[in-house]
Amino acid sequence: MASTAGQVMRRMASTAGQVIRCKAAVAWEAGKPLMIEEVEVAPPQAMEVRLKILFTSLCHTDVYFWEAKGQTPLFPRIFGHEAGAIVESVGEGVTDLKPGDHVLPVFTGECKECRQCKSEESNMCDLLRINTDRGVMLNDGKSRFSIRGQPIYHFVGTSTFSEYTVVHVGCAAKINPAAPLDKVCVLSCGISTGLGATLNVAKPNKGSSVAIFGLGAVGLAAAEGARISGASRIIGVDLNSNRFEEAKKFGVTEFVNPKDHDKPVQEVIADMTNGGVDRSVECTGSISAMVSAFECVHDGWGVAVLVGVPNKDDAFKTHPMNILNERTLKGTFFGNYKPRSDLPSVVEKYMNKELELEKFITHEVPFSEINKAFEYMLSGASLRCIIRMDA
Amino acid sequence: MASTAGQVMRRMASTAGQVIRCKAAVAWEAGKPLMIEEVEVAPPQAMEVRLKILFTSLCHTDVYFWEAKGQTPLFPRIFGHEAGAIVESVGEGVTDLKPGDHVLPVFTGECKECRQCKSEESNMCDLLRINTDRGVMLNDGKSRFSIRGQPIYHFVGTSTFSEYTVVHVGCAAKINPAAPLDKVCVLSCGISTGLGATLNVAKPNKGSSVAIFGLGAVGLAAAEGARISGASRIIGVDLNSNRFEEAKKFGVTEFVNPKDHDKPVQEVIADMTNGGVDRSVECTGSISAMVSAFECVHDGWGVAVLVGVPNKDDAFKTHPMNILNERTLKGTFFGNYKPRSDLPSVVEKYMNKELELEKFITHEVPFSEINKAFEYMLSGASLRCIIRMDA
Repeated sequence: MASTAGQVMRRMASTAGQVIRCKAAVAWEAGKPLMIEEVEVAPPQAMEVRLKILFTSLCHTDVYFWEAKGQTPLFPRIFGHEAGAIVESVGEGVTDLKPGDHVLPVFTGECKECRQCKSEESNMCDLLRINTDRGVMLNDGKSRFSIRGQPIYHFVGTSTFSEYTVVHVGCAAKINPAAPLDKVCVLSCGISTGLGATLNVAKPNKGSSVAIFGLGAVGLAAAEGARISGASRIIGVDLNSNRFEEAKKFGVTEFVNPKDHDKPVQEVIADMTNGGVDRSVECTGSISAMVSAFECVHDGWGVAVLVGVPNKDDAFKTHPMNILNERTLKGTFFGNYKPRSDLPSVVEKYMNKELELEKFITHEVPFSEINKAFEYMLSGASLRCIIRMDA
Repeated sequence: MASTAGQVMRRMASTAGQVIRCKAAVAWEAGKPLMIEEVEVAPPQAMEVRLKILFTSLCHTDVYFWEAKGQTPLFPRIFGHEAGAIVESVGEGVTDLKPGDHVLPVFTGECKECRQCKSEESNMCDLLRINTDRGVMLNDGKSRFSIRGQPIYHFVGTSTFSEYTVVHVGCAAKINPAAPLDKVCVLSCGISTGLGATLNVAKPNKGSSVAIFGLGAVGLAAAEGARISGASRIIGVDLNSNRFEEAKKFGVTEFVNPKDHDKPVQEVIADMTNGGVDRSVECTGSISAMVSAFECVHDGWGVAVLVGVPNKDDAFKTHPMNILNERTLKGTFFGNYKPRSDLPSVVEKYMNKELELEKFITHEVPFSEINKAFEYMLSGASLRCIIRMDA
């Protein structure tokens, strides 16, 4: 059973300012099962907060960097960036959070001071923008995690696969304490990314048509956004036809598997929709899907939104007339949500039942079995697997 | 001296329903000087209007199709698509216009009935969208122009290099009769295209930075839009440094000639602007300028607008991360103005002195010397040359 906030708080009082010894799932090597270890978690420094993680969930990005194919490997490391947590203690200068606050740690931050944070349109904070190569804290360039003196690297400033973690105050969104952390924890990354891509960027009108490329958790969250917007046709595109049945729960009304057709999927969609969809959202990261997502929107008013992260050497290529015929191409990052300013309102969408989160949560494991979450994701069995830290 | 509307009207009364014999500048062959000929102009058919052209001006598109490099040649043809005119007579079913109305003929129309016309976002009418390959009227697939029985082809539904022409009612925007046709005629195409690209699509905020690629008439009109929007920095980009002095009149504050730099112009602009401009507008049609215009906008909020028409085999190519970092790429056609619905308000911008047109008009010739207008444009001497039909 999960601890109540009161129980957590009582334990916290004694730990502030101290090194905390707790369990963490450490990735010692690329692609090898995580090992549950006892780690030491240093107290938060200036503008940092230490969090007790109650629930965390696994996202593709953890798996991608754990596999370390194509990036600079950084090990040993503690992964994890989707979580529901309670503030244990705060460092010097932190005024926005206090012990006991409920927060969602976020892999990209909001300092509220830089030009990006001050722009109404951007959420790409200059100070705290995602940095997957950095394994240390900004304040002193060091890790807060160690095992017998050996530093263990952080991951995207969150490292939520640990009972306690330290994050920059700009990377923790304070939310409604009544929100169940075992549900809203999935809003830390993937679900907000897909949802915001549709609600904040594609902005489909009621009654419009929307194509969603990729029916994983992010794509289904984009579909959920289209459903919430009142789109009348939501066309799911995926190479795996098995996904269609589940996708219907997220409002997807039609399905296209590019493998079933001899012509490019953008032409298939144009034929289905009298010239193209009103909006499209690309959630695969495949460069050919990106081009298809752009070319399948209607001329005159179509908007295509790219979400999926491409490979380093990809090139997006299209005939410029496709652009000139009044199509719009936009990229988004974390659904254009400013983490601290906007996530509380996404949590409220769940609280008032506008947004359904339960259908994204297909699995649950105790922390001791965290490697099962990796297996579920790698086999394509799960959308989101919740990892209970107290079990 | 120009005829008054009253004089024109009196002459019109006798011509309705009759074939009109008048002077037109006929292009008999690609790239050869136009010949002033006596042509016969048939009466307007259903949903057509016959116009008396008072002033016309020369646009690059006329020159491009007159040169017939790279497109299917269609000769003999009467070019011309920027003009100020008065309705001489109307065909069956025309209720929106009557003899004596002042209009701007437009190369792309607005039927007000199709899905595009009914969309708030589009101006790409399904029925009357520009068609440079068609040299005849929609109603019967024939030309209204002939010389001794030989049909002379139309150009983009306007053919304004003639004292009289016939256009579809959807290709004539009724404007304020008090507006001087020798000035507002330039709003038929190029000036509105550039102006609207900025005002309707790029929409820069007051105090923002805007880069304009190409400082011909369209680019300078885009700069004029930035000036009207209150942009504080307007960076002109052109391969011809001589254009900078004139560009200052249109609000351009800084100038970059890509030939003066060893690095790509997008990097030069990023250095000048702490990471990129807020908006860019591409008015050259060069594919490399299109890519630069996209890549020079700031991440997080930058919007690039493409106006220039590319070559058939061009490919727009960029790294998808440039898109994902929250940049927006949009294409526009005729500045996103719906010709009949929106041009009257652009004329009003001139009437209330918000928009300056005089500075675009660098030359004026009598109709008999129309070939001089081609020379001025080909030598780069002119922005707009007004051709007076009565002289």
